[in-house]
Amino acid sequence: MQSAHYTGSGTIEVRDAERVAPAAGQVEIKVAFVGICGTDLHIFHGAMDSRVTMPAIIGHEMSGTIERVGDGVEGWDVGHSVTVIPLDHDGTCPACLAGNQHICHNLNFIGIDSPGALQEYWTVPADVLVAVPAGTPLHHAALVEPVAVAVHDVRRSGIAQGDKAIVIGGGPIGVLIATVAREFGGDVRLLELDESRRAMAESMGVATLDPRDPEHKTVIDEWTGGAGADVVFEVSGAAAAVLGATDYAKVRGTLVIVAIHSEPRPINLHRVFWRELTIVGARVYERVDYEKAIELISAGRIPADQLITHVMTLDHTGDAFLTLESGAAMKVLIGMPGTEVPA
Amino acid sequence: MQSAHYTGSGTIEVRDAERVAPAAGQVEIKVAFVGICGTDLHIFHGAMDSRVTMPAIIGHEMSGTIERVGDGVEGWDVGHSVTVIPLDHDGTCPACLAGNQHICHNLNFIGIDSPGALQEYWTVPADVLVAVPAGTPLHHAALVEPVAVAVHDVRRSGIAQGDKAIVIGGGPIGVLIATVAREFGGDVRLLELDESRRAMAESMGVATLDPRDPEHKTVIDEWTGGAGADVVFEVSGAAAAVLGATDYAKVRGTLVIVAIHSEPRPINLHRVFWRELTIVGARVYERVDYEKAIELISAGRIPADQLITHVMTLDHTGDAFLTLESGAAMKVLIGMPGTEVPA
Repeated sequence: MQSAHYTGSGTIEVRDAERVAPAAGQVEIKVAFVGICGTDLHIFHGAMDSRVTMPAIIGHEMSGTIERVGDGVEGWDVGHSVTVIPLDHDGTCPACLAGNQHICHNLNFIGIDSPGALQEYWTVPADVLVAVPAGTPLHHAALVEPVAVAVHDVRRSGIAQGDKAIVIGGGPIGVLIATVAREFGGDVRLLELDESRRAMAESMGVATLDPRDPEHKTVIDEWTGGAGADVVFEVSGAAAAVLGATDYAKVRGTLVIVAIHSEPRPINLHRVFWRELTIVGARVYERVDYEKAIELISAGRIPADQLITHVMTLDHTGDAFLTLESGAAMKVLIGMPGTEVPA
Repeated sequence: MQSAHYTGSGTIEVRDAERVAPAAGQVEIKVAFVGICGTDLHIFHGAMDSRVTMPAIIGHEMSGTIERVGDGVEGWDVGHSVTVIPLDHDGTCPACLAGNQHICHNLNFIGIDSPGALQEYWTVPADVLVAVPAGTPLHHAALVEPVAVAVHDVRRSGIAQGDKAIVIGGGPIGVLIATVAREFGGDVRLLELDESRRAMAESMGVATLDPRDPEHKTVIDEWTGGAGADVVFEVSGAAAAVLGATDYAKVRGTLVIVAIHSEPRPINLHRVFWRELTIVGARVYERVDYEKAIELISAGRIPADQLITHVMTLDHTGDAFLTLESGAAMKVLIGMPGTEVPA
């Protein structure tokens, strides 16, 4: 079979590799589609070389069908459509014992810390499988992981029916959060600097504002009746956005930190005090988030076809990373050999 | 009567002044004791000159007895022991309408935005009065306001029975938070740089650690079984403390921002994300916090006599500010003329 390997310094090599027969408790998945995310791009840029073991098969947003089932695996049959929760926890650390397995102190993130989905056949423990309903197209199912991220972020915000929500940053996760927040009853405005990204979000029914427009604060003030937004999602990763984010929130409003900030960011703690704001961190997802994500995708509540701007073949995986890097794409999928790539 | 006036640039002048007869809905209080807090010291330093109207009678931590009652005031009689919630809200802003009157968008903080308690007789609206039980010494009752701050901070933390709590900063509010957190069932460690403040806290039964000791993180690790603390209170106001505070919290732990940070502070958002931390702002108090504070003080659950390191007379108000500024004091009270000052 073919598989894509990150070999360091911006290089992806597609090679022949041996399939791994599923051991007891494992299944082999015939991979259909793999999405490339911001974390994968970080790895491609060499920013996580101390964590990945090269040559590394990465990729954790995926869909496929079960190809082989190892001994002792119950409830999964060949041909089932599946995706994977790429989290392997130890079950014994304080976080696991407190019920927060998704933030296990010794979490193995499959596709970063161990081999991922950018290969034709992928063997994984059966307990990371999540069923995809039969009618759901597999290229849509490759969005379950990022949609689950958005569901988790929205759940962490505590948003309630009728709440006003501001999303800062209009990349794929920002647009997904905006979409999911609306499904949770939110009235949403997306702040995005880039005009073409704003246009793309608007085409998916998401109202946008340009944070460089000096009038945008007046618009928010009128929209919220002078109160400020109930919840704010910081998805941009920009220091200036973090500093300004607290200004948008109402008294006792919530700011969710979604973007990964690799260095400390100045935060307006006077505003946090003055308005008794809450800031919450959100990391990956729990199984309930996957279930909600599959429900939303299967019901057509996620604009999957608009979000998937590129589907490229496995032998063009390196080009796919460059396409994502260029900023021209929203979601880039790799379609495996033999997979029917939607038009 | 005599009253103390802040007249700018580190100057307090004690002057003769006219008593204000209570209008309808008002009462006149014969002031007994007034505590000086960090905010008063900020005013004294000129940091809030744009907000106060000079000459300004400041002071908002107080106790006294009702001297005269205006027309239409029900339920309050001459001689009643009282303290005051120094918050005057407009009742019409979005925060008030949402039930958060203590963070009214147009809050008048009595003693900052309008005349305060550093005068022998103080006339206030009856609806800011809070009854002090007859058996509670009035110098203890002057601590109700700062204890209510601590109760509010502890309530905002969501602390539960058996939770481990770290308090960063061992001034009066830090020690009060440590004491109140213990009353709420917390197991508390106070981090304080200054050896004499650590000794003072220890004398009040609060376990302390020196954050400059490289071993203190190991001690915390062992104490929390490697999990980290459930709640962390940042009371020091120091940038370095804010940056380090996130390291002490467990997965899904809570950091309460108690200190007032006048400029943005770098926060380790990677840690906030990685451990799904919650950061909450806490500002002043609600009536329920006052009620709990009075209950704790009246029951002798607050080490009031140890906290009150200085009681000075009204004509030495300027010296009292300098004493507080020196760092040698914990709580400095002004005892009004004729008040029996405890030994």
